[in-house]
Amino acid sequence: MTQWVRFRSAEGRAGFGSLERDQIREHAGDLYGTCSPSGKTYPLTAVTLVCPAAPSKIIALWNNFHALAKKIDKPIPKYPLFFIKPASCVVGPGEPIHRPAAYSGKIAFEGELGIVIGKRCANVSVENAANYIFGYTCVNDVTAIDILHADPNFAQWSRAKSCDTFGCMGPAITTDLEWSSRNVVTRLDGVERQNYPLQDMVFSPGELVSHISHDLTLLPGDVIACGTSLGVGSIKDGSAVEIAIEGIGVLANTLAWSR
Amino acid sequence: MTQWVRFRSAEGRAGFGSLERDQIREHAGDLYGTCSPSGKTYPLTAVTLVCPAAPSKIIALWNNFHALAKKIDKPIPKYPLFFIKPASCVVGPGEPIHRPAAYSGKIAFEGELGIVIGKRCANVSVENAANYIFGYTCVNDVTAIDILHADPNFAQWSRAKSCDTFGCMGPAITTDLEWSSRNVVTRLDGVERQNYPLQDMVFSPGELVSHISHDLTLLPGDVIACGTSLGVGSIKDGSAVEIAIEGIGVLANTLAWSR
Repeated sequence: MTQWVRFRSAEGRAGFGSLERDQIREHAGDLYGTCSPSGKTYPLTAVTLVCPAAPSKIIALWNNFHALAKKIDKPIPKYPLFFIKPASCVVGPGEPIHRPAAYSGKIAFEGELGIVIGKRCANVSVENAANYIFGYTCVNDVTAIDILHADPNFAQWSRAKSCDTFGCMGPAITTDLEWSSRNVVTRLDGVERQNYPLQDMVFSPGELVSHISHDLTLLPGDVIACGTSLGVGSIKDGSAVEIAIEGIGVLANTLAWSR
Repeated sequence: MTQWVRFRSAEGRAGFGSLERDQIREHAGDLYGTCSPSGKTYPLTAVTLVCPAAPSKIIALWNNFHALAKKIDKPIPKYPLFFIKPASCVVGPGEPIHRPAAYSGKIAFEGELGIVIGKRCANVSVENAANYIFGYTCVNDVTAIDILHADPNFAQWSRAKSCDTFGCMGPAITTDLEWSSRNVVTRLDGVERQNYPLQDMVFSPGELVSHISHDLTLLPGDVIACGTSLGVGSIKDGSAVEIAIEGIGVLANTLAWSR
Protein backbone atom coordinates (compact mmCIF):
# COMPACT_ATOMS: atom_id res chain seq x y z
CA MET A 1 0.00 0.00 0.00
CA THR A 2 1.68 3.22 -1.20
CA GLN A 3 0.20 6.71 -0.87
CA TRP A 4 1.19 8.82 -3.88
CA VAL A 5 0.90 12.60 -3.75
CA ARG A 6 1.60 15.47 -6.10
CA PHE A 7 2.93 18.70 -4.65
CA ARG A 8 4.21 22.18 -5.34
CA SER A 9 7.38 23.08 -3.48
CA ALA A 10 7.89 26.41 -1.71
CA GLU A 11 9.78 27.56 -4.84
CA GLY A 12 6.77 26.67 -7.00
CA ARG A 13 8.25 23.52 -8.53
CA ALA A 14 5.81 20.66 -9.29
CA GLY A 15 6.70 17.16 -8.13
CA PHE A 16 5.28 13.85 -7.00
CA GLY A 17 6.32 11.17 -4.61
CA SER A 18 5.36 8.62 -2.00
CA LEU A 19 4.16 9.68 1.41
CA GLU A 20 6.11 8.12 4.25
CA ARG A 21 4.77 9.34 7.58
CA ASP A 22 5.36 13.13 7.42
CA GLN A 23 7.88 13.04 4.56
CA ILE A 24 7.45 12.90 0.79
CA ARG A 25 10.02 10.77 -1.03
CA GLU A 26 10.12 12.52 -4.40
CA HIS A 27 10.10 10.36 -7.53
CA ALA A 28 11.06 11.15 -11.12
CA GLY A 29 9.44 9.70 -14.24
CA ASP A 30 5.82 8.85 -14.94
CA LEU A 31 3.58 8.06 -11.98
CA TYR A 32 1.54 5.67 -14.12
CA GLY A 33 4.54 4.29 -16.00
CA THR A 34 8.12 3.93 -14.78
CA CYS A 35 9.38 6.09 -11.94
CA SER A 36 12.06 5.91 -9.28
CA PRO A 37 13.18 7.97 -6.27
CA SER A 38 14.86 11.25 -7.22
CA GLY A 39 16.92 11.17 -4.00
CA LYS A 40 15.12 14.22 -2.54
CA THR A 41 12.71 14.19 0.37
CA TYR A 42 10.44 17.00 1.49
CA PRO A 43 8.73 17.45 4.84
CA LEU A 44 4.96 17.37 4.22
CA THR A 45 4.67 20.73 5.99
CA ALA A 46 7.09 22.37 3.53
CA VAL A 47 5.03 21.77 0.38
CA THR A 48 1.50 22.35 -0.91
CA LEU A 49 -0.33 19.19 -1.95
CA VAL A 50 -2.18 19.46 -5.26
CA CYS A 51 -4.67 17.11 -6.93
CA PRO A 52 -2.88 13.74 -7.09
CA ALA A 53 -4.55 12.69 -10.38
CA ALA A 54 -4.76 14.72 -13.58
CA PRO A 55 -7.82 13.16 -15.19
CA SER A 56 -8.84 13.81 -18.78
CA LYS A 57 -12.38 13.05 -17.58
CA ILE A 58 -14.26 11.93 -14.48
CA ILE A 59 -16.92 9.24 -14.84
CA ALA A 60 -19.30 9.75 -11.91
CA LEU A 61 -21.88 7.21 -10.78
CA TRP A 62 -25.48 7.67 -9.68
CA ASN A 63 -27.38 5.18 -7.52
CA ASN A 64 -24.47 2.84 -6.77
CA PHE A 65 -25.19 2.06 -3.08
CA HIS A 66 -27.93 -0.23 -1.84
CA ALA A 67 -28.73 1.91 1.22
CA LEU A 68 -29.25 5.06 -0.83
CA ALA A 69 -31.28 3.24 -3.50
CA LYS A 70 -33.59 2.02 -0.74
CA LYS A 71 -33.90 5.48 0.80
CA ILE A 72 -34.74 7.20 -2.50
CA ASP A 73 -36.95 4.21 -3.42
CA LYS A 74 -35.23 3.40 -6.72
CA PRO A 75 -34.49 -0.09 -8.04
CA ILE A 76 -30.89 -1.31 -8.15
CA PRO A 77 -29.68 -0.45 -11.68
CA LYS A 78 -28.82 -3.25 -14.10
CA TYR A 79 -25.90 -1.29 -15.47
CA PRO A 80 -23.72 1.50 -13.99
CA LEU A 81 -25.51 4.83 -14.47
CA PHE A 82 -23.08 7.67 -14.97
CA PHE A 83 -22.53 11.22 -16.10
CA ILE A 84 -19.27 12.95 -17.01
CA LYS A 85 -17.46 15.74 -15.17
CA PRO A 86 -14.77 17.53 -17.18
CA ALA A 87 -11.11 18.06 -16.23
CA SER A 88 -11.84 21.78 -15.88
CA CYS A 89 -13.75 21.18 -12.62
CA VAL A 90 -10.87 19.46 -10.79
CA VAL A 91 -9.25 20.90 -7.65
CA GLY A 92 -6.94 19.35 -5.09
CA PRO A 93 -6.84 19.21 -1.30
CA GLY A 94 -7.13 22.56 0.46
CA GLU A 95 -8.28 24.44 -2.63
CA PRO A 96 -11.46 26.50 -2.28
CA ILE A 97 -14.77 25.46 -3.82
CA HIS A 98 -16.25 28.47 -5.61
CA ARG A 99 -19.93 29.20 -6.03
CA PRO A 100 -20.69 29.83 -9.74
CA ALA A 101 -21.05 33.59 -10.28
CA ALA A 102 -24.64 33.35 -11.55
CA TYR A 103 -25.89 30.78 -9.00
CA SER A 104 -27.30 31.54 -5.56
CA GLY A 105 -28.90 28.13 -4.80
CA LYS A 106 -27.87 25.23 -2.61
CA ILE A 107 -24.50 23.53 -3.07
CA ALA A 108 -24.25 19.90 -1.90
CA PHE A 109 -21.32 17.73 -0.83
CA GLU A 110 -21.12 14.07 -1.84
CA GLY A 111 -18.31 12.04 -0.32
CA GLU A 112 -17.14 9.24 -2.62
CA LEU A 113 -14.41 6.73 -3.35
CA GLY A 114 -12.51 7.56 -6.56
CA ILE A 115 -10.86 4.88 -8.70
CA VAL A 116 -7.74 6.18 -10.48
CA ILE A 117 -7.00 4.42 -13.78
CA GLY A 118 -3.35 3.43 -14.37
CA LYS A 119 -3.36 2.14 -17.96
CA ARG A 120 -5.25 2.84 -21.17
CA CYS A 121 -8.25 0.61 -20.88
CA ALA A 122 -10.91 -0.56 -23.37
CA ASN A 123 -13.15 -3.65 -23.29
CA VAL A 124 -11.51 -5.24 -20.25
CA SER A 125 -13.10 -8.13 -18.36
CA VAL A 126 -14.07 -7.91 -14.70
CA GLU A 127 -11.32 -10.46 -13.98
CA ASN A 128 -8.65 -8.29 -15.62
CA ALA A 129 -9.94 -4.93 -14.41
CA ALA A 130 -7.67 -4.82 -11.34
CA ASN A 131 -4.65 -4.58 -13.66
CA TYR A 132 -5.94 -1.22 -14.90
CA ILE A 133 -6.62 0.30 -11.48
CA PHE A 134 -3.67 2.34 -10.25
CA GLY A 135 -5.21 3.21 -6.89
CA TYR A 136 -7.93 5.01 -4.99
CA THR A 137 -8.55 8.57 -3.83
CA CYS A 138 -11.22 10.58 -2.00
CA VAL A 139 -13.70 12.56 -4.10
CA ASN A 140 -16.13 15.32 -3.20
CA ASP A 141 -18.63 15.33 -6.08
CA VAL A 142 -19.86 18.87 -5.45
CA THR A 143 -23.30 19.65 -6.91
CA ALA A 144 -25.33 22.80 -7.65
CA ILE A 145 -28.37 20.91 -6.46
CA ASP A 146 -31.03 23.43 -7.54
CA ILE A 147 -29.86 23.12 -11.16
CA LEU A 148 -30.23 19.33 -11.25
CA HIS A 149 -34.01 19.20 -11.65
CA ALA A 150 -34.67 22.83 -12.66
CA ASP A 151 -35.93 21.68 -16.06
CA PRO A 152 -38.67 19.02 -15.85
CA ASN A 153 -37.72 17.59 -19.26
CA PHE A 154 -33.98 17.15 -18.83
CA ALA A 155 -32.08 16.26 -15.65
CA GLN A 156 -28.99 18.46 -15.74
CA TRP A 157 -26.42 16.07 -14.22
CA SER A 158 -23.51 17.37 -16.24
CA ARG A 159 -24.28 21.04 -15.69
CA ALA A 160 -25.01 20.79 -11.94
CA LYS A 161 -21.80 18.87 -11.30
CA SER A 162 -19.29 20.34 -13.77
CA CYS A 163 -18.86 23.87 -12.45
CA ASP A 164 -15.24 24.91 -11.88
CA THR A 165 -13.93 23.57 -8.52
CA PHE A 166 -16.79 21.00 -8.22
CA GLY A 167 -14.45 18.00 -8.62
CA CYS A 168 -12.40 17.89 -5.40
CA MET A 169 -9.91 15.01 -5.23
CA GLY A 170 -7.09 13.87 -2.97
CA PRO A 171 -5.11 14.09 -0.81
CA ALA A 172 -3.33 10.94 -2.10
CA ILE A 173 -3.77 8.02 -4.47
CA THR A 174 -3.39 4.82 -2.48
CA THR A 175 -2.45 1.63 -4.28
CA ASP A 176 -3.73 -1.78 -3.16
CA LEU A 177 -6.37 -0.28 -0.87
CA GLU A 178 -8.65 -2.89 0.65
CA TRP A 179 -11.65 -0.79 -0.27
CA SER A 180 -14.21 -3.37 0.83
CA SER A 181 -13.31 -2.96 4.50
CA ARG A 182 -13.31 0.86 4.45
CA ASN A 183 -15.94 3.53 5.07
CA VAL A 184 -16.37 6.93 3.49
CA VAL A 185 -16.67 9.53 6.24
CA THR A 186 -17.78 13.08 5.44
CA ARG A 187 -17.57 15.87 8.00
CA LEU A 188 -19.12 19.32 7.60
CA ASP A 189 -17.41 21.89 9.82
CA GLY A 190 -16.13 19.00 11.91
CA VAL A 191 -19.52 17.28 12.34
CA GLU A 192 -19.88 13.81 10.84
CA ARG A 193 -22.56 13.77 8.12
CA GLN A 194 -21.75 10.62 6.14
CA ASN A 195 -20.24 7.36 7.32
CA TYR A 196 -21.04 4.54 4.97
CA PRO A 197 -19.36 1.22 4.15
CA LEU A 198 -17.92 0.76 0.66
CA GLN A 199 -18.93 -2.88 1.00
CA ASP A 200 -22.51 -1.68 0.26
CA MET A 201 -21.53 -0.71 -3.31
CA VAL A 202 -23.76 -2.07 -6.10
CA PHE A 203 -21.07 -2.28 -8.81
CA SER A 204 -17.60 -2.91 -7.39
CA PRO A 205 -14.52 -1.06 -8.71
CA GLY A 206 -13.62 -4.02 -10.95
CA GLU A 207 -17.16 -4.19 -12.35
CA LEU A 208 -17.22 -0.43 -12.93
CA VAL A 209 -13.92 -0.42 -14.80
CA SER A 210 -15.00 -3.38 -16.93
CA HIS A 211 -18.48 -2.06 -17.78
CA ILE A 212 -17.38 1.52 -18.45
CA SER A 213 -14.38 0.41 -20.52
CA HIS A 214 -16.84 -1.34 -22.85
CA ASP A 215 -18.43 2.05 -23.60
CA LEU A 216 -15.39 4.31 -23.78
CA THR A 217 -11.64 4.24 -23.44
CA LEU A 218 -10.29 5.15 -20.01
CA LEU A 219 -6.87 6.80 -19.85
CA PRO A 220 -4.16 6.89 -17.15
CA GLY A 221 -5.22 9.39 -14.49
CA ASP A 222 -8.92 9.19 -15.37
CA VAL A 223 -11.12 8.91 -12.30
CA ILE A 224 -14.29 6.92 -11.73
CA ALA A 225 -16.22 8.45 -8.80
CA CYS A 226 -18.12 5.48 -7.34
CA GLY A 227 -21.24 7.40 -6.28
CA THR A 228 -22.34 8.41 -2.81
CA SER A 229 -24.65 6.96 -0.16
CA LEU A 230 -26.70 8.28 2.77
CA GLY A 231 -26.13 11.66 4.40
CA VAL A 232 -25.65 14.07 1.52
CA GLY A 233 -26.33 17.66 2.54
CA SER A 234 -25.68 21.24 1.60
CA ILE A 235 -22.66 23.43 2.30
CA LYS A 236 -23.02 26.99 3.50
CA ASP A 237 -20.63 29.65 2.24
CA GLY A 238 -17.52 29.50 4.41
CA SER A 239 -18.11 25.92 5.56
CA ALA A 240 -15.41 23.23 5.35
CA VAL A 241 -16.05 19.73 4.03
CA GLU A 242 -13.74 16.82 4.80
CA ILE A 243 -13.95 13.48 2.99
CA ALA A 244 -11.94 10.83 4.85
CA ILE A 245 -11.12 7.26 3.85
CA GLU A 246 -8.72 5.33 6.07
CA GLY A 247 -5.53 4.57 4.16
CA ILE A 248 -6.03 7.48 1.74
CA GLY A 249 -6.31 10.44 4.09
CA VAL A 250 -8.54 13.47 4.52
CA LEU A 251 -9.62 15.66 1.59
CA ALA A 252 -10.57 19.10 2.96
CA ASN A 253 -12.11 21.91 0.91
CA THR A 254 -13.97 25.06 1.98
CA LEU A 255 -16.80 26.73 0.08
CA ALA A 256 -15.49 30.26 -0.42
CA TRP A 257 -17.62 33.24 0.59
CA SER A 258 -19.43 34.60 -2.46
CA ARG A 259 -17.49 37.15 -4.38
CA MET B 1 -13.37 33.67 -43.64
CA THR B 2 -10.49 31.19 -43.29
CA GLN B 3 -10.84 27.41 -43.29
CA TRP B 4 -8.29 25.88 -40.94
CA VAL B 5 -7.42 22.20 -41.17
CA ARG B 6 -5.12 19.79 -39.37
CA PHE B 7 -3.43 17.07 -41.39
CA ARG B 8 -0.99 14.20 -41.38
CA SER B 9 1.49 14.23 -44.24
CA ALA B 10 2.36 11.11 -46.29
CA GLU B 11 5.44 10.77 -44.05
CA GLY B 12 3.24 10.82 -40.94
CA ARG B 13 4.10 14.36 -39.83
CA ALA B 14 1.31 16.35 -38.11
CA GLY B 15 0.64 19.87 -39.32
CA PHE B 16 -2.02 22.53 -39.69
CA GLY B 17 -2.76 25.26 -42.14
CA SER B 18 -5.28 27.25 -44.10
CA LEU B 19 -7.17 25.69 -46.95
CA GLU B 20 -6.88 27.64 -50.21
CA ARG B 21 -8.85 25.89 -52.93
CA ASP B 22 -7.11 22.48 -53.20
CA GLN B 23 -3.91 23.49 -51.39
CA ILE B 24 -3.06 23.68 -47.69
CA ARG B 25 -0.82 26.58 -46.73
CA GLU B 26 0.95 25.14 -43.71
CA HIS B 27 1.36 27.35 -40.65
CA ALA B 28 3.67 27.09 -37.64
CA GLY B 29 2.86 28.13 -34.09
CA ASP B 30 -0.37 27.88 -32.13
CA LEU B 31 -3.62 27.77 -34.11
CA TYR B 32 -5.44 29.55 -31.27
CA GLY B 33 -2.56 31.89 -30.46
CA THR B 34 0.09 33.25 -32.80
CA CYS B 35 0.92 31.42 -36.01
CA SER B 36 2.32 32.27 -39.42
CA PRO B 37 2.93 30.50 -42.76
CA SER B 38 5.75 27.97 -42.62
CA GLY B 39 6.45 28.49 -46.32
CA LYS B 40 5.30 24.99 -47.27
CA THR B 41 2.15 24.10 -49.17
CA TYR B 42 0.60 20.67 -49.61
CA PRO B 43 -1.92 19.54 -52.20
CA LEU B 44 -5.07 18.48 -50.33
CA THR B 45 -4.90 15.11 -52.08
CA ALA B 46 -1.40 14.41 -50.69
CA VAL B 47 -2.35 14.52 -46.99
CA THR B 48 -4.86 12.95 -44.60
CA LEU B 49 -7.11 15.43 -42.83
CA VAL B 50 -7.53 14.80 -39.08
CA CYS B 51 -9.89 16.36 -36.54
CA PRO B 52 -9.29 20.12 -36.80
CA ALA B 53 -9.96 20.79 -33.09
CA ALA B 54 -8.43 18.96 -30.13
CA PRO B 55 -11.08 19.60 -27.48
CA SER B 56 -10.55 18.88 -23.80
CA LYS B 57 -14.35 18.45 -23.68
CA ILE B 58 -17.42 18.75 -25.88
CA ILE B 59 -20.50 20.50 -24.49
CA ALA B 60 -23.45 19.13 -26.45
CA LEU B 61 -26.92 20.69 -26.48
CA TRP B 62 -30.34 19.07 -26.31
CA ASN B 63 -33.53 20.75 -27.55
CA ASN B 64 -31.93 23.83 -29.13
CA PHE B 65 -34.05 24.14 -32.29
CA HIS B 66 -37.63 25.41 -32.40
CA ALA B 67 -38.73 22.95 -35.12
CA LEU B 68 -37.51 19.91 -33.18
CA ALA B 69 -38.97 21.17 -29.88
CA LYS B 70 -42.34 21.49 -31.62
CA LYS B 71 -42.08 18.01 -33.14
CA ILE B 72 -41.17 16.29 -29.87
CA ASP B 73 -43.72 18.50 -28.08
CA LYS B 74 -41.31 19.98 -25.53
CA PRO B 75 -41.29 23.59 -24.36
CA ILE B 76 -38.43 25.85 -25.41
CA PRO B 77 -35.89 25.63 -22.56
CA LYS B 78 -35.16 28.67 -20.43
CA TYR B 79 -31.50 27.79 -20.25
CA PRO B 80 -29.22 25.73 -22.54
CA LEU B 81 -29.62 22.03 -21.65
CA PHE B 82 -26.41 20.11 -22.17
CA PHE B 83 -24.43 16.97 -21.51
CA ILE B 84 -20.69 16.38 -21.86
CA LYS B 85 -18.87 14.19 -24.36
CA PRO B 86 -15.23 13.42 -23.48
CA ALA B 87 -12.15 13.99 -25.66
CA SER B 88 -11.77 10.21 -25.95
CA CYS B 89 -14.77 10.01 -28.32
CA VAL B 90 -13.38 12.43 -30.92
CA VAL B 91 -12.56 11.39 -34.50
CA GLY B 92 -11.87 13.43 -37.62
CA PRO B 93 -13.13 13.39 -41.20
CA GLY B 94 -12.93 10.02 -42.93
CA GLU B 95 -12.33 8.04 -39.75
CA PRO B 96 -14.64 5.10 -39.11
CA ILE B 97 -17.37 5.14 -36.48
CA HIS B 98 -17.15 1.93 -34.42
CA ARG B 99 -20.07 0.14 -32.83
CA PRO B 100 -19.27 -0.49 -29.13
CA ALA B 101 -18.25 -4.15 -28.71
CA ALA B 102 -21.08 -4.95 -26.29
CA TYR B 103 -23.86 -3.03 -28.12
CA SER B 104 -26.05 -4.38 -30.90
CA GLY B 105 -28.77 -1.68 -30.87
CA LYS B 106 -29.50 1.28 -33.11
CA ILE B 107 -26.86 3.95 -33.72
CA ALA B 108 -28.15 7.40 -34.71
CA PHE B 109 -26.59 10.31 -36.59
CA GLU B 110 -27.19 13.91 -35.51
CA GLY B 111 -25.83 16.62 -37.79
CA GLU B 112 -24.87 19.76 -35.87
CA LEU B 113 -22.96 23.03 -35.97
CA GLY B 114 -19.92 23.00 -33.66
CA ILE B 115 -18.55 26.17 -32.06
CA VAL B 116 -14.77 26.00 -31.53
CA ILE B 117 -13.52 28.08 -28.60
CA GLY B 118 -10.39 30.17 -29.23
CA LYS B 119 -9.57 31.60 -25.80
CA ARG B 120 -9.93 30.53 -22.18
CA CYS B 121 -13.38 31.72 -21.30
CA ALA B 122 -15.25 32.14 -17.99
CA ASN B 123 -18.22 34.37 -17.14
CA VAL B 124 -18.29 36.23 -20.46
CA SER B 125 -21.23 38.36 -21.52
CA VAL B 126 -23.29 37.68 -24.64
CA GLU B 127 -21.87 40.90 -26.08
CA ASN B 128 -18.27 39.76 -25.60
CA ALA B 129 -18.80 36.09 -26.48
CA ALA B 130 -17.80 36.52 -30.14
CA ASN B 131 -14.25 37.35 -29.01
CA TYR B 132 -13.93 33.83 -27.60
CA ILE B 133 -15.24 31.99 -30.66
CA PHE B 134 -12.41 30.87 -32.93
CA GLY B 135 -14.66 29.41 -35.59
CA TYR B 136 -17.17 26.74 -36.55
CA THR B 137 -17.03 23.11 -37.63
CA CYS B 138 -19.41 20.27 -38.55
CA VAL B 139 -20.28 17.75 -35.85
CA ASN B 140 -21.89 14.33 -36.02
CA ASP B 141 -23.14 13.72 -32.46
CA VAL B 142 -23.36 9.93 -32.83
CA THR B 143 -25.67 8.23 -30.33
CA ALA B 144 -26.26 4.65 -29.12
CA ILE B 145 -29.95 5.45 -29.09
CA ASP B 146 -31.16 2.29 -27.31
CA ILE B 147 -28.99 3.14 -24.29
CA LEU B 148 -30.44 6.63 -23.88
CA HIS B 149 -33.70 5.62 -22.20
CA ALA B 150 -32.83 2.02 -21.24
CA ASP B 151 -33.14 2.91 -17.54
CA PRO B 152 -36.45 4.61 -16.66
CA ASN B 153 -34.89 6.44 -13.70
CA PHE B 154 -31.85 7.97 -15.36
CA ALA B 155 -31.52 9.23 -18.93
CA GLN B 156 -28.07 8.09 -20.02
CA TRP B 157 -27.06 11.06 -22.20
CA SER B 158 -23.37 10.84 -21.39
CA ARG B 159 -23.11 7.08 -21.83
CA ALA B 160 -25.13 6.89 -25.07
CA LYS B 161 -23.08 9.66 -26.67
CA SER B 162 -19.56 9.19 -25.30
CA CYS B 163 -18.54 5.89 -26.88
CA ASP B 164 -15.21 5.99 -28.71
CA THR B 165 -15.60 7.47 -32.25
CA PHE B 166 -19.02 9.01 -31.40
CA GLY B 167 -17.74 12.60 -31.65
CA CYS B 168 -17.06 13.17 -35.37
CA MET B 169 -15.78 16.66 -36.22
CA GLY B 170 -14.41 18.48 -39.23
CA PRO B 171 -13.31 18.76 -41.95
CA ALA B 172 -12.26 22.36 -41.18
CA ILE B 173 -12.73 25.13 -38.64
CA THR B 174 -14.06 28.18 -40.45
CA THR B 175 -13.60 31.61 -38.91
CA ASP B 176 -16.17 34.39 -39.33
CA LEU B 177 -18.82 32.03 -40.67
CA GLU B 178 -22.17 33.72 -41.16
CA TRP B 179 -23.89 30.85 -39.40
CA SER B 180 -27.32 32.45 -39.40
CA SER B 181 -27.64 32.14 -43.18
CA ARG B 182 -26.45 28.51 -43.34
CA ASN B 183 -28.18 25.14 -43.19
CA VAL B 184 -26.98 21.86 -41.74
CA VAL B 185 -27.38 19.15 -44.38
CA THR B 186 -27.01 15.46 -43.43
CA ARG B 187 -26.82 12.75 -46.07
CA LEU B 188 -27.01 9.01 -45.36
CA ASP B 189 -25.46 6.96 -48.17
CA GLY B 190 -25.93 10.00 -50.38
CA VAL B 191 -29.62 10.57 -49.54
CA GLU B 192 -30.50 13.85 -47.81
CA ARG B 193 -31.95 13.20 -44.34
CA GLN B 194 -31.53 16.55 -42.58
CA ASN B 195 -31.59 20.05 -44.03
CA TYR B 196 -32.38 22.62 -41.39
CA PRO B 197 -31.60 26.33 -41.02
CA LEU B 198 -29.27 27.38 -38.21
CA GLN B 199 -31.42 30.52 -37.98
CA ASP B 200 -33.97 28.34 -36.12
CA MET B 201 -31.58 27.90 -33.16
CA VAL B 202 -33.03 28.68 -29.71
CA PHE B 203 -29.78 29.85 -28.09
CA SER B 204 -27.36 31.44 -30.57
CA PRO B 205 -23.62 30.69 -30.48
CA GLY B 206 -22.96 33.90 -28.52
CA GLU B 207 -25.67 33.06 -25.99
CA LEU B 208 -24.39 29.49 -25.65
CA VAL B 209 -20.81 30.59 -25.01
CA SER B 210 -21.95 33.20 -22.49
CA HIS B 211 -24.35 30.92 -20.57
CA ILE B 212 -22.05 27.90 -20.51
CA SER B 213 -19.01 29.99 -19.53
CA HIS B 214 -20.94 31.02 -16.42
CA ASP B 215 -21.05 27.36 -15.36
CA LEU B 216 -17.60 26.16 -16.34
CA THR B 217 -14.40 27.36 -17.94
CA LEU B 218 -14.11 26.72 -21.68
CA LEU B 219 -10.59 26.20 -23.08
CA PRO B 220 -9.08 26.79 -26.54
CA GLY B 221 -10.18 23.94 -28.82
CA ASP B 222 -13.22 23.04 -26.71
CA VAL B 223 -16.32 22.48 -28.83
CA ILE B 224 -19.94 23.35 -28.18
CA ALA B 225 -22.18 21.14 -30.34
CA CYS B 226 -25.27 23.30 -30.91
CA GLY B 227 -27.83 20.46 -30.95
CA THR B 228 -29.67 18.96 -33.87
CA SER B 229 -33.08 19.48 -35.50
CA LEU B 230 -35.50 17.43 -37.60
CA GLY B 231 -34.51 14.32 -39.53
CA VAL B 232 -32.36 12.32 -37.11
CA GLY B 233 -32.21 8.66 -38.04
CA SER B 234 -30.21 5.51 -37.58
CA ILE B 235 -27.09 4.32 -39.40
CA LYS B 236 -26.73 0.75 -40.62
CA ASP B 237 -23.34 -0.96 -40.38
CA GLY B 238 -21.38 0.01 -43.47
CA SER B 239 -23.39 3.19 -44.16
CA ALA B 240 -21.76 6.56 -44.73
CA VAL B 241 -22.94 9.77 -43.06
CA GLU B 242 -22.06 13.20 -44.41
CA ILE B 243 -22.65 16.41 -42.46
CA ALA B 244 -22.32 19.44 -44.74
CA ILE B 245 -22.35 23.14 -43.88
CA GLU B 246 -21.57 25.59 -46.67
CA GLY B 247 -18.30 27.39 -45.93
CA ILE B 248 -17.04 24.61 -43.66
CA GLY B 249 -17.18 21.58 -45.94
CA VAL B 250 -18.38 18.00 -45.75
CA LEU B 251 -17.66 15.74 -42.76
CA ALA B 252 -17.90 12.11 -43.91
CA ASN B 253 -17.71 9.07 -41.61
CA THR B 254 -18.76 5.46 -42.17
CA LEU B 255 -20.11 3.11 -39.51
CA ALA B 256 -17.71 0.18 -39.70
CA TRP B 257 -19.03 -3.36 -40.08
CA SER B 258 -19.19 -5.03 -36.66
CA ARG B 259 -16.02 -6.79 -35.70
